[in-house]
Amino acid sequence: MKVSELGEFGLIGLIGRTVTAHSRTPSGLLIGIGDDAAAWRTGAPVQLATTDTMVDGVHFLKDKTGWDELGWKSLAVNLSDIAAMGGVPRYALVTLAIPGDTEGDDIVSLYKGMLDIAGSSGVTIAGGDTVSSPVIVITVSLSGEMPEDGDRIMTRSAARPGETIAVTGFLGSSAAGLRMVQQPLPMEGAAAAYLRQAHFKPQPRVAEGQEMARAGVRCAIDVSDGLIGDLTHICEMSRVGARIVSDRVPVHPFVKAAFPGEYLDLALSGGEDYELLFTAGETVLAQLRKAVHIPLTAIGEITGNHPGQVVLVDHEGKSVARSKTGWDHFHPG
Amino acid sequence: MKVSELGEFGLIGLIGRTVTAHSRTPSGLLIGIGDDAAAWRTGAPVQLATTDTMVDGVHFLKDKTGWDELGWKSLAVNLSDIAAMGGVPRYALVTLAIPGDTEGDDIVSLYKGMLDIAGSSGVTIAGGDTVSSPVIVITVSLSGEMPEDGDRIMTRSAARPGETIAVTGFLGSSAAGLRMVQQPLPMEGAAAAYLRQAHFKPQPRVAEGQEMARAGVRCAIDVSDGLIGDLTHICEMSRVGARIVSDRVPVHPFVKAAFPGEYLDLALSGGEDYELLFTAGETVLAQLRKAVHIPLTAIGEITGNHPGQVVLVDHEGKSVARSKTGWDHFHPG
Repeated sequence: MKVSELGEFGLIGLIGRTVTAHSRTPSGLLIGIGDDAAAWRTGAPVQLATTDTMVDGVHFLKDKTGWDELGWKSLAVNLSDIAAMGGVPRYALVTLAIPGDTEGDDIVSLYKGMLDIAGSSGVTIAGGDTVSSPVIVITVSLSGEMPEDGDRIMTRSAARPGETIAVTGFLGSSAAGLRMVQQPLPMEGAAAAYLRQAHFKPQPRVAEGQEMARAGVRCAIDVSDGLIGDLTHICEMSRVGARIVSDRVPVHPFVKAAFPGEYLDLALSGGEDYELLFTAGETVLAQLRKAVHIPLTAIGEITGNHPGQVVLVDHEGKSVARSKTGWDHFHPG
Repeated sequence: MKVSELGEFGLIGLIGRTVTAHSRTPSGLLIGIGDDAAAWRTGAPVQLATTDTMVDGVHFLKDKTGWDELGWKSLAVNLSDIAAMGGVPRYALVTLAIPGDTEGDDIVSLYKGMLDIAGSSGVTIAGGDTVSSPVIVITVSLSGEMPEDGDRIMTRSAARPGETIAVTGFLGSSAAGLRMVQQPLPMEGAAAAYLRQAHFKPQPRVAEGQEMARAGVRCAIDVSDGLIGDLTHICEMSRVGARIVSDRVPVHPFVKAAFPGEYLDLALSGGEDYELLFTAGETVLAQLRKAVHIPLTAIGEITGNHPGQVVLVDHEGKSVARSKTGWDHFHPG
């Protein structure tokens, strides 16, 4: 069967089964394939590692993206994975597969964008690889560690029935920003700047992830595939159901104004928000609200019904149909 | 200036300067950009990390390489970097950028090849990323650590005048294997099997690297660009010169027999041998010979003359001209 028929998650499943069946090595691995980042312990502290790749024409369009934005985003998406574990990001390796006719100045811009967010996140660029390639492929691998005062890693598999489902910030802004650039929409001023930044320079929730782990949150994921898609990952790996109320999904006023008929779909399925989606009991959530300074919105609850399924209802409790289940790289939506 | 004009090492220099100029973060970084792997200390043990990428049409030809060989080699080249630091490899993240029409069975073969060498090297595949791409790009990032009984990391910058230059195994076999497949040469039997394995399934010197660090070797690099090229890296970073005797360079009898007129050039500039090139005093070298069970050949000495330069002489001490300085991905030789 071809990879395009398997789909991204079918492929990840195939890889996970192959690795499990043929691994002969005992290891200090705590979290393996399938979560936001890997985790292991060989000494102290617990180590985290993640990697994400951006391919020209698939994840970005060279002509519509600044090199500095590309640098920022290629590190930001990795920071978001470490954030979703509750970890402290530390060292990045950067692999550039680029055509020979790329300008050196553009590479400097790329690194400046990356170093901008690295500096504000406490990350050091420690090495990497440079190779020639017909298409631009940027791969960042990022190491991190759990804070010394605890190694309560947040995973996708720890959601429990009765917990509240909550999310940081706003959803759909990144997809709205992409649509603004692609169509293109004649927007300007603060709204245009907000939407562009949401898509091209997302702000991963690193400090908030650490606060969550400290407050006792055990289950989190970053919103990269889209709210419904990522919540489905949690439901599948935790073997629980989820019920979310469409009216509660936080959408920024600029997005509602620019996309009055589509903002809910953007928020549910747009993806690349790099906000944190998590589950918690009421006490933990109340404690967390005191510690973080960005919006935290309760959007539903974990249930014991229909494991692996996300149910969407309106404010009257009526079921809402949905059109998409999020991004799948091998079945582009 | 374009990347192709800068060349691979010009590009790495540009990146290194950009990172240094714009880094604001204090860090526990011990070894940064420019060595075989990065190293840092935030707890115990010292952590190592490296990454290497293989691009279809640049580093391999899909039609001439088995998927299992591709999996083996994509991890092996990273293992070799950890070996060159004297480290213990631990956890790998694997990023596959592949076209949608790739067969799932081929991906299973790729992982089996990777798991084969992972198992024999004590490495766990802990995660990664899968993305759609018009060209196959396989990126492995590998974490490791220094053994508990010491953190004497071997670097490229520690060679001292008077030390002997030595190398493990044989050089030129990988380039000979590639030439056999590309031309193709009508070879069979043990010679063909040896040459194919040398290029497609190289054996990184992980255990030997750890023995070197334990014995007191301070300077090592793995031979990926070619003997002259990699020794030049040592000379530049250590600010020393090197003098090697062409007749002493170890070449396998199969390679001499198959390429009677070219074997020295293959050994000097072929690259991708993944043997370890190192410098050591006579006492350390004698101790190391007792500990390892593969050939270790002394091929020359580090000098205080002509820093950054490698001089090649024959057994009478006469200078030998050389045609190439090794691989440069942006100026393919």
